[in-house]
Amino acid sequence: MDSTIKHIGVFTSGGDSPGMNAALYAITKTAEVNGINVSGFRKGYEGLIDGDLVQLKSHELQKLTQKGGTILKTARSKRFLELEGRKKALQTLNVNKIDALIAIGGDGTFKGLLAFSEICDIPFIGIPGTIDNDISGTDYTLGFDSAVNTTIENIDKIRDTAESHNRVFIVEVMGRDSGYIGIHSGLMVGADAILIPESGTDFINLLGKVKNYDSEDAFLIVVSEGDEIGAELVSSKIKEVNPNVDLRITKLGHIQRGGNPCALDRMLGIRLGVEAVKSLLQSKKNVMIGILNNQLHLTPFNEVVKQHQVNKELHELLELFGT
Amino acid sequence: MDSTIKHIGVFTSGGDSPGMNAALYAITKTAEVNGINVSGFRKGYEGLIDGDLVQLKSHELQKLTQKGGTILKTARSKRFLELEGRKKALQTLNVNKIDALIAIGGDGTFKGLLAFSEICDIPFIGIPGTIDNDISGTDYTLGFDSAVNTTIENIDKIRDTAESHNRVFIVEVMGRDSGYIGIHSGLMVGADAILIPESGTDFINLLGKVKNYDSEDAFLIVVSEGDEIGAELVSSKIKEVNPNVDLRITKLGHIQRGGNPCALDRMLGIRLGVEAVKSLLQSKKNVMIGILNNQLHLTPFNEVVKQHQVNKELHELLELFGT
Amino acid sequence: MDSTIKHIGVFTSGGDSPGMNAALYAITKTAEVNGINVSGFRKGYEGLIDGDLVQLKSHELQKLTQKGGTILKTARSKRFLELEGRKKALQTLNVNKIDALIAIGGDGTFKGLLAFSEICDIPFIGIPGTIDNDISGTDYTLGFDSAVNTTIENIDKIRDTAESHNRVFIVEVMGRDSGYIGIHSGLMVGADAILIPESGTDFINLLGKVKNYDSEDAFLIVVSEGDEIGAELVSSKIKEVNPNVDLRITKLGHIQRGGNPCALDRMLGIRLGVEAVKSLLQSKKNVMIGILNNQLHLTPFNEVVKQHQVNKELHELLELFGT
Amino acid sequence: MDSTIKHIGVFTSGGDSPGMNAALYAITKTAEVNGINVSGFRKGYEGLIDGDLVQLKSHELQKLTQKGGTILKTARSKRFLELEGRKKALQTLNVNKIDALIAIGGDGTFKGLLAFSEICDIPFIGIPGTIDNDISGTDYTLGFDSAVNTTIENIDKIRDTAESHNRVFIVEVMGRDSGYIGIHSGLMVGADAILIPESGTDFINLLGKVKNYDSEDAFLIVVSEGDEIGAELVSSKIKEVNPNVDLRITKLGHIQRGGNPCALDRMLGIRLGVEAVKSLLQSKKNVMIGILNNQLHLTPFNEVVKQHQVNKELHELLELFGT
Repeated sequence: MDSTIKHIGVFTSGGDSPGMNAALYAITKTAEVNGINVSGFRKGYEGLIDGDLVQLKSHELQKLTQKGGTILKTARSKRFLELEGRKKALQTLNVNKIDALIAIGGDGTFKGLLAFSEICDIPFIGIPGTIDNDISGTDYTLGFDSAVNTTIENIDKIRDTAESHNRVFIVEVMGRDSGYIGIHSGLMVGADAILIPESGTDFINLLGKVKNYDSEDAFLIVVSEGDEIGAELVSSKIKEVNPNVDLRITKLGHIQRGGNPCALDRMLGIRLGVEAVKSLLQSKKNVMIGILNNQLHLTPFNEVVKQHQVNKELHELLELFGT
Repeated sequence: MDSTIKHIGVFTSGGDSPGMNAALYAITKTAEVNGINVSGFRKGYEGLIDGDLVQLKSHELQKLTQKGGTILKTARSKRFLELEGRKKALQTLNVNKIDALIAIGGDGTFKGLLAFSEICDIPFIGIPGTIDNDISGTDYTLGFDSAVNTTIENIDKIRDTAESHNRVFIVEVMGRDSGYIGIHSGLMVGADAILIPESGTDFINLLGKVKNYDSEDAFLIVVSEGDEIGAELVSSKIKEVNPNVDLRITKLGHIQRGGNPCALDRMLGIRLGVEAVKSLLQSKKNVMIGILNNQLHLTPFNEVVKQHQVNKELHELLELFGT
Repeated sequence: MDSTIKHIGVFTSGGDSPGMNAALYAITKTAEVNGINVSGFRKGYEGLIDGDLVQLKSHELQKLTQKGGTILKTARSKRFLELEGRKKALQTLNVNKIDALIAIGGDGTFKGLLAFSEICDIPFIGIPGTIDNDISGTDYTLGFDSAVNTTIENIDKIRDTAESHNRVFIVEVMGRDSGYIGIHSGLMVGADAILIPESGTDFINLLGKVKNYDSEDAFLIVVSEGDEIGAELVSSKIKEVNPNVDLRITKLGHIQRGGNPCALDRMLGIRLGVEAVKSLLQSKKNVMIGILNNQLHLTPFNEVVKQHQVNKELHELLELFGT
Repeated sequence: MDSTIKHIGVFTSGGDSPGMNAALYAITKTAEVNGINVSGFRKGYEGLIDGDLVQLKSHELQKLTQKGGTILKTARSKRFLELEGRKKALQTLNVNKIDALIAIGGDGTFKGLLAFSEICDIPFIGIPGTIDNDISGTDYTLGFDSAVNTTIENIDKIRDTAESHNRVFIVEVMGRDSGYIGIHSGLMVGADAILIPESGTDFINLLGKVKNYDSEDAFLIVVSEGDEIGAELVSSKIKEVNPNVDLRITKLGHIQRGGNPCALDRMLGIRLGVEAVKSLLQSKKNVMIGILNNQLHLTPFNEVVKQHQVNKELHELLELFGT
């Protein structure tokens, strides 16, 4: 056990995602049990640069495992991309006698830590937090399961009105250039077609399917925002071949980012948060904690890559259900 | 009691709304207790014209009070606007020996019944169903409360991410040319600004408020889809005066139409459905059943108007909270 | 306008209920606009006695309209029942220069204010907050609609498993000696039987119904906790006449008290909160603000009674659907 | 590929669990694509014995991925425990020319298949479905994630009222003799104590903690129904050492079994359902399909055991957070 660590700093960075507060709770509780103080930097790297920090207490965080977003707030920091900014951050760590740093965020966050490690040699630990689930070294990122649950609950609502009117609905979901939310939610709601960036859409097939769809029923198309074809183009193509179609587009948007974290994300936040502190006590540094094949797993920052996880099994499911 | 009624026809028309199935249950149950059969016409006036009907049983409908949309499906019918269509509908009623008709829909639906009454003299009863709550003669229309609940649950989610990033969010909600969903949901989520068609927005004031808003917090703007200014214009104006603002637009869209009906809409459906049958038994005809000042209330079809219910109290609330 | 009021005290008392925080927001916002400070006493009358108060700011409360419970906490106070306690409370008001008092609670809370008015002559205003909806002078109390929504969402879940097993389920809901939650939720979920204290249950009829129920389906019985027969007795009677019945009891319990307030309760909190401050400015005192027939309505404290609101219409619905 | 399979039978058995309908959808869709018919037996082994079956169509099941429970209904069958019953079931399979059987249920279901395999040599495939997550060979059983989500959403509601009153709450959750739901939900809601059967509760420690708990806050205890101490004993012990404690017990009960399946359970149902049919096509037989370490995994029926999965990591989390 590394008994030299007395004060851990923690922050959330990049896009917020449900489960971050559960991770903050677990980090703080585990640290407290080991006689370590925890300070939270606000607004990601900005708080590191500006020395904007608050002391964290597990007794207060305990009530917030259910809360979406991040109580530390988050931001993307241009200043930290410059050496000048990183030097200021280093000064903050020195002034506040921070012995170790835990960051919750996406691959950009971990790249920032790598750059920072060139001038700062306290240990850094990363926790993957993004609804897009597009980070290697972990099966799930914090927030993905909550985002998918929000997505399917709302597509279920859309099914009610789609079936009442026998309408075609195109629902656009989030994921940036990853179709992971799209394929998962599409399968889960029994969609008639699923369009994601990772898969060349068989457009002819889709149009044929819509043309001949049972006009006594709904027809649901789930499109990932990163899909090159996109909701509008699909819509106009469908209207070309099927001018009388009763079609609507809904873009779920930012509701997918918020809301109380679901079970999986709370547990993930707790498991990763506990392991982050334990890893520091075992003198680990510059690694991201993930859950790979249901086991805790460490990946060095320089091996973490942005990754689309549409594996063979998913591709087969897409082929079977999605076109 | 009107003992001549042996067979009631019922249909849902216009946009679907949560609570319609509860009304169908109540109509059928009340009819059965009084020895009356109920047939449901599918897809609104289209089913009337085409003779597309199913027998309804309260035992089956009982399980569906929780279901959004309408199991009878709904549609807007161009054919019924023509005398030809209405004549076919009359024929359907005659062939199936329908003694009375109950329609669940909006003001357009009731206008249709008025026109139909010129050639068909069986009694018609209307039940107001639309999420827009824009019909006179009732404090609530079926579906309004459920739509507002869906709206606020989702704006609550947006608040999570807005607060995490200290962002300005413009959320567009439904209501066609009525701001009723907008003002209600805006008040309920603690919005910083609420823009609805019924109120000339003090744009200067809004921009000043956004310009000076606490950059350490979220700023939520709720805009009704019918508002002439609209989400995009508000967004571009804000960016003019405040170029660095971190702003997002989310349009909630059709998720507001679906989902399980909330308590109020289920109860409303049951109360209005029971009263519709009772009114028929009391030889009422060509009236809409509403709840006015918490009491059951009948309004003749020719007095039902499309109405924006932003009354004096709401205007004062808007002035107090919304700008 | 009463320009002498500069500082309002507010507290929540009795059982907590969803919507209380929205009322606190509206009170504070309306007061601020009128240049009035607001202090919140913690834990009901206990905080008044102990001088335990915090300053309220609408900017902070704005984010909490969505939060269940009461951020001021609540309690039942034995000390305030004694003159000694009330004298200490008076002292607290004098020391803190409180010019007026707004209390959110049930009929016991208003009785306390009446007693207090004998030694304290600043104006008091009451807002009805209890999930039981058993107070005269208002159609809805804060929290009732949220409790019913929680109830029906959970009975809907029970229906899933009841139908999968063709089981009889007895679900006990809250309401103390009022059957208001019971009858409403029972109707809304399509229950096969509804037992409430206000209605002499036709036990023979119920047993006959259960004995002959379709063993290919679920059979749902909703029982109010105040019903003299109760879940256990119903269960044992059913097993007497129908020994092989597959029956389960579920008591929903305190989940009905918490959770995010639904739309109606947020709006009710806002309307009542605004009117409470306006009433003070109009020199009103010792009245409860309610919504009667959808209009704001003032009732003097000494006319507020605990009341079961199962009116004629509800009794007819119960007869039609509930036995 | 095994081209001899033309007709698959499927049934759900034991307790129902959310996700079963998604599995039925996936089985049927995959079978259809491979030119195979699917018949669903109703009420588990009872339907097999009685020849109570319906044809399944993916087009209809597609809309039901969101529905809790099982549309095929389920039951425990005493008759199938007898050879006589199994012989009748065999007759049903022969009469209907069923080539293969897929069963969704718990370990008892698979034991039944093992016994059946002595007289019936068509291939059997099992899918683990139970909210208790107590089956070896899979990390998740169908329904567990949904049950935990229902549990935590409701404990979150209880926290609202517990914090408003500074109360001690004991919440009993399901799991029969497994503490898996208990430990997971307890961690996820930030419980102050978690009591499960697998862990000898340090009662002295618990009582000390409750005795000294911050009376300015809530104190949440999550107890698994299988815990030998149980909610009532804990309650009475606490009251012994702390007579003035304001304490409530809530038993969540059967609401944990129902409700729309969450994301994870829908996906699990789809993955397992697809693989069940694929396994049959690959001539697999008498195996259960599970997800182990995030990979599809087959376990022979005779190796499937009832298993409590509180592994080392969970025990450490329990020690850290739960006592």
